Amino acid sequence: MNRITLQGKLDLIHEFWTPKIIAELNGQYVKLAKAKGEMVWHSHQDEDELFLVIRGKLTIELRDREINLTEGDIFIVPKGIEHRPIAREEAHILLFEPIETKHTGNIRSTMTVENLEWI
Amino acid sequence: MNRITLQGKLDLIHEFWTPKIIAELNGQYVKLAKAKGEMVWHSHQDEDELFLVIRGKLTIELRDREINLTEGDIFIVPKGIEHRPIAREEAHILLFEPIETKHTGNIRSTMTVENLEWI
Repeated sequence: MNRITLQGKLDLIHEFWTPKIIAELNGQYVKLAKAKGEMVWHSHQDEDELFLVIRGKLTIELRDREINLTEGDIFIVPKGIEHRPIAREEAHILLFEPIETKHTGNIRSTMTVENLEWI
Repeated sequence: MNRITLQGKLDLIHEFWTPKIIAELNGQYVKLAKAKGEMVWHSHQDEDELFLVIRGKLTIELRDREINLTEGDIFIVPKGIEHRPIAREEAHILLFEPIETKHTGNIRSTMTVENLEWI
């Protein structure tokens, strides 16, 4: 039961596309990630996923369009919807999603991290 | 399935301590509120409550100490813990909590809003 400072937590992240858990509540995790380049296409069968851009710009490609986000923007990818996040330059993002959510969803790739770390 | 701009939503809020719903996912609501002055002491029996300060400063009084938050800080009040948010000057906050959560928890006061609005 302590204050969590987003910038302090971001300073502990040194890899791209490797979300770290910063908080847990009501069966959900709050995660932070640094993003640069392209993630893999994936979907989450049973979980909606919230992206909040803290710094920089993030594009979320969907199969039929793309969503362009900047600082202070939120986008929710509904369960089952294929998506691919892209950050042309480094961006920092906050994620809210159920504890069960795998960060590459239905896809196992070289980007998949089996056990996300707490920071 | 659209981009949500926090500042655009905040511009639609004209009252203090009246959270508005901006998104729903996985049985949870994302809410925004403008804060100024003191809220009432209350607790939420079954729900943890997340505060993220978007602008300004927020103090969360607990019965045994106070938590001082500034922009980019998160604090989670665990279920059952009495708390009272205070903003000495106007502050803007994002809340993340289950759909069932009442904003004044176990207390009915003049600040209680029965049906929170979507914006």
